[in-house]
Amino acid sequence: MRILITGGGGFVGSALARRILAAGSLAVGGAPAAEVEELVLADLVAPAPDLVADPRVRAATGDLATVLAGEQGADLVFHLAGVVSGAAEADFDLGMATNLDATRAVLEWCRSRAVPPVLVFSSSIAVFGHDPALPRIEQVTDDTLPRPQTSYGTQKLIGELLVADYARKGFVRGRSVRLMTVSVRPGRPNAAASGFLSGIIREPLAGERAVCPVPPDTPVALSSPRRTLEGLLRAAEVSDELWGSRTAMTLPGITTTPRAMAAALDRVAGAGTSDLIEWREDPAIIAMIEGWPAVFRTDRARALGLAPEESFDDIVQAYIDDLR
Amino acid sequence: MRILITGGGGFVGSALARRILAAGSLAVGGAPAAEVEELVLADLVAPAPDLVADPRVRAATGDLATVLAGEQGADLVFHLAGVVSGAAEADFDLGMATNLDATRAVLEWCRSRAVPPVLVFSSSIAVFGHDPALPRIEQVTDDTLPRPQTSYGTQKLIGELLVADYARKGFVRGRSVRLMTVSVRPGRPNAAASGFLSGIIREPLAGERAVCPVPPDTPVALSSPRRTLEGLLRAAEVSDELWGSRTAMTLPGITTTPRAMAAALDRVAGAGTSDLIEWREDPAIIAMIEGWPAVFRTDRARALGLAPEESFDDIVQAYIDDLR
Repeated sequence: MRILITGGGGFVGSALARRILAAGSLAVGGAPAAEVEELVLADLVAPAPDLVADPRVRAATGDLATVLAGEQGADLVFHLAGVVSGAAEADFDLGMATNLDATRAVLEWCRSRAVPPVLVFSSSIAVFGHDPALPRIEQVTDDTLPRPQTSYGTQKLIGELLVADYARKGFVRGRSVRLMTVSVRPGRPNAAASGFLSGIIREPLAGERAVCPVPPDTPVALSSPRRTLEGLLRAAEVSDELWGSRTAMTLPGITTTPRAMAAALDRVAGAGTSDLIEWREDPAIIAMIEGWPAVFRTDRARALGLAPEESFDDIVQAYIDDLR
Repeated sequence: MRILITGGGGFVGSALARRILAAGSLAVGGAPAAEVEELVLADLVAPAPDLVADPRVRAATGDLATVLAGEQGADLVFHLAGVVSGAAEADFDLGMATNLDATRAVLEWCRSRAVPPVLVFSSSIAVFGHDPALPRIEQVTDDTLPRPQTSYGTQKLIGELLVADYARKGFVRGRSVRLMTVSVRPGRPNAAASGFLSGIIREPLAGERAVCPVPPDTPVALSSPRRTLEGLLRAAEVSDELWGSRTAMTLPGITTTPRAMAAALDRVAGAGTSDLIEWREDPAIIAMIEGWPAVFRTDRARALGLAPEESFDDIVQAYIDDLR
């Protein structure tokens, strides 16, 4: 089987690729497991060297529309490519081109294949926002109306709707999953407004200072990298019948606060580790983060066997284990 | 003041134009009423002769993108242009181009004006649909999650989201209103799946046969042409503060059935008039109509003073009065 990952040079795309290659075979869309023969990693940047070294991996580096024009087909597509929340807010046209137009290009590519592939689209809980004219959302369920308050959230929600309609028309076997903020992400900070939710753990563990730009008791919802990959793979794996509604599915997350995260860091890595966190509020980031709801009831995901981590301590420990 | 109506050659656009011209002045976006100096009617077809005859009216006939390129600006835009549900379902690419890309062109045009105009976007209750994996929606409120089950509904919902995000960014003063099925529409049948909800009244009143393609007791929600225009004008009139949430507002409607509509026709126009209705079911139309919810609680609209007609008898009587 051939698998295509857009955004295959990014953190989630690379981690997903490693996991698929390690498994060696994958069950897709309710079919029996089949051997992974080719894994195409499409991105503006080249994949990591360890991935390129695998004979099953082929790098497709360049603009997504150009890359797709050269691809023959795929049994499974993970569409992860996009620009993050902060970047889409700072450059509206870039966000529209990368998060909306490129998603349309992926959908049109799927539509023009002889056999419609299974497409897993990574949406985001940023589709939810705090509408200034309305009370705050206390808890998000599978039926909550998203009222995005960022361009990123708007573009992701539009992507979900397009995936659902292309699936309804039979152009693609589409499944949209809303990813929680992933923490702890390795590597360098990115332009996501939520980037600090990894930074306040990652940087102190490396002996570096990190800024927390929101008040310590701000409620936030998170998911570990491992649970995030499990959600993406489960979306690829199940039959259309098990997947059910074409409306996007929110993946599970745990609700915590930066203060509780700092306490977990000290418990796992040693007292005083969190002293490297500098608590300096940034109104622009507070506005975005406070707009995202922090409490979720993810019944659909649970019915597919997806559950959040039990504690943030486990997430910190898993990050440290992965570093070694 | 200058007003631009896209879809200005259609039924709702023409009726709106006549009403604005008769009023002579309009309050827009919370400002005091101002004289209507120019009314631009943009459409692929030329406006009706009575409208062209008004010295304040200018026809801008042609493709919307081309028409917009020649327009300097407007204080108020009603974006009504689009292809209807049946046509968008039959020709997916046409629907995407006309209902999605053209809406983006209108938004970009508004964004590039020196002063962002007030934009009223006509969405539709077709954003709601019966998700085959879920129970039917019993009642739609302002917080109900739309799960569109037609390409038309999907494209309208995407339009709403774009209007909201362009408004949030300050590119336009956008307001999206979800129109009910309008009944009784004058003129000839169109490609809307809901067209029969006008036809079963209009044709018998003209002594012609009409087909009702759904079971007589199918619940449907309707609004009269008059109430629909009132909703569009109220959306244009109020201040940003009064308008409130940037999420689309559903306009009021009455819940009835084809059987009750036929009975109203007989009461108003004389016993036996409805004998010209032929009850012949069409599974494709039943599937679309049954997907649209029929019971609405439109609190936001009510708070702006918008209410549905009291009975379908009144709607039939008003249609007959207008014909004379």
